Amino acid sequence: MLELISEHACFGGIQRFYTHDSAAIGLPMRFSIFIPAQAAGGKLPALFYLAGLTCTEETFMIKAGAQRVAAEEGLILVSPDTSPRGAGAPGEADSWDFGVGAGFYLDATVEPWSKHYRMESYLHELHAIVTSEFAVEADRIGIFGHSMGGHGALTLALKRPDLYRSVSAFAPIAAPTRCPWGRKAFGGYLGPDEEAWRAHDASELMASLRTPFPQGILIDQGLADKFLERQLYPEVFEEACRKAAQPLELRRHAAYDHGYYFISTFMEDHLRFHGRNLKA
Amino acid sequence: MLELISEHACFGGIQRFYTHDSAAIGLPMRFSIFIPAQAAGGKLPALFYLAGLTCTEETFMIKAGAQRVAAEEGLILVSPDTSPRGAGAPGEADSWDFGVGAGFYLDATVEPWSKHYRMESYLHELHAIVTSEFAVEADRIGIFGHSMGGHGALTLALKRPDLYRSVSAFAPIAAPTRCPWGRKAFGGYLGPDEEAWRAHDASELMASLRTPFPQGILIDQGLADKFLERQLYPEVFEEACRKAAQPLELRRHAAYDHGYYFISTFMEDHLRFHGRNLKA
Repeated sequence: MLELISEHACFGGIQRFYTHDSAAIGLPMRFSIFIPAQAAGGKLPALFYLAGLTCTEETFMIKAGAQRVAAEEGLILVSPDTSPRGAGAPGEADSWDFGVGAGFYLDATVEPWSKHYRMESYLHELHAIVTSEFAVEADRIGIFGHSMGGHGALTLALKRPDLYRSVSAFAPIAAPTRCPWGRKAFGGYLGPDEEAWRAHDASELMASLRTPFPQGILIDQGLADKFLERQLYPEVFEEACRKAAQPLELRRHAAYDHGYYFISTFMEDHLRFHGRNLKA
Repeated sequence: MLELISEHACFGGIQRFYTHDSAAIGLPMRFSIFIPAQAAGGKLPALFYLAGLTCTEETFMIKAGAQRVAAEEGLILVSPDTSPRGAGAPGEADSWDFGVGAGFYLDATVEPWSKHYRMESYLHELHAIVTSEFAVEADRIGIFGHSMGGHGALTLALKRPDLYRSVSAFAPIAAPTRCPWGRKAFGGYLGPDEEAWRAHDASELMASLRTPFPQGILIDQGLADKFLERQLYPEVFEEACRKAAQPLELRRHAAYDHGYYFISTFMEDHLRFHGRNLKA
């Protein structure tokens, strides 16, 4: 049962915020959805956006400037929160890169995180909710995201290309098993066995595949991004794509950093990319 | 002396945040500026944006989606904070519609507010800073704003059409001497003599003028704005414009509310309007 928190007219469509009791998480969860005017005429493709560390279901909708182009393309936009809220796990709010606001879009397997920190299952639940409760074409859904959410978008799409027909990312954590953010999160949520981590690393996943997205993958990366060298490793994902014969457009932008001034600049390109893929 | 707080590449230009010791305020003040790439080739028109209650110098730049069109138009964007910070006036942070975050773009005349709450003088100081320190054409500057900032934009432009060549607003407090927000602010900052309030009320100011902006004034107002009936009074300003033979385009939009989902929807129209006026 979805409970509407607020709604706002926006670019001829409607921006809504919902809360609902999530079966996967076992707690109330919030998500946002932008529904363009074209939804009055029938089902539309949809695009999930996964936000980064510390963000919420509001971040993308208020900062990225996406609704203008989504209204033109006739794309429904959906953005979940970035972790459970109120799980009560000890220390869950002690650091900004683990626990609250840092769910990493995977299902934790070790206590105490495994009880509620189940964001991968939550995304499947939300996928089902969106296709049943809104005017969404179930076989025309794409996914993208930023940083931790770029990791989420790439890994969820590579695990379930049946659910996500199009994928892109802004400055993704592209090889999390190699970087401090990823090693901290995977160690905490999945335990010390690094073999189990590989199933949640986009570069490792790509290595076992063959051209999973023939229409290509789009990634934008700023070269003034202070996290680029230590945390993101787009070149590792690039090499994995090369070996997997996966077309990848990895655009490196001089001067751009890790924030929403960067993301908003290239948002239109991503929405046009997904629009083409989802309407093909 | 301006101190750069941060800078971010954005739509081919640069988004900067500065702090400086303000002579008008007597405290450090922050402002934001977006400089499009065209500034490398010479001076450009500039457009000041005044934000509403509780906002800061960041609100417009991160939520309004203005840089895309400013980059196309070759417009520099400038947005100040909405009040002094750290003035230490008793009770200044006790309410969201007076004091901190609620400077109302005027110079207070009664103690203790008159010491630091001097936002009208601050805007003049910032106007001078922007024209001396950045590639801005001093005679091609416009101003716009939202709610309290719409009040600020209209009143400052009507008082100083020599400084501001173009003016528009989103959901402005258009007759503040008649509404609770305005009466609370004017009573606090200016004292009980209501005659003194009239110099800071856009509708009162317009009544004493004759076509101050021959190129017109643009105002957008949402009809689902919960503040419309009690706080905004666009119809009073509309009538004042009619009597002053001031061309006004007051657009009333069904379903839109008071927030940035509304503002971002019509932002492009305002930037094109100012671009035309400032480049004419």
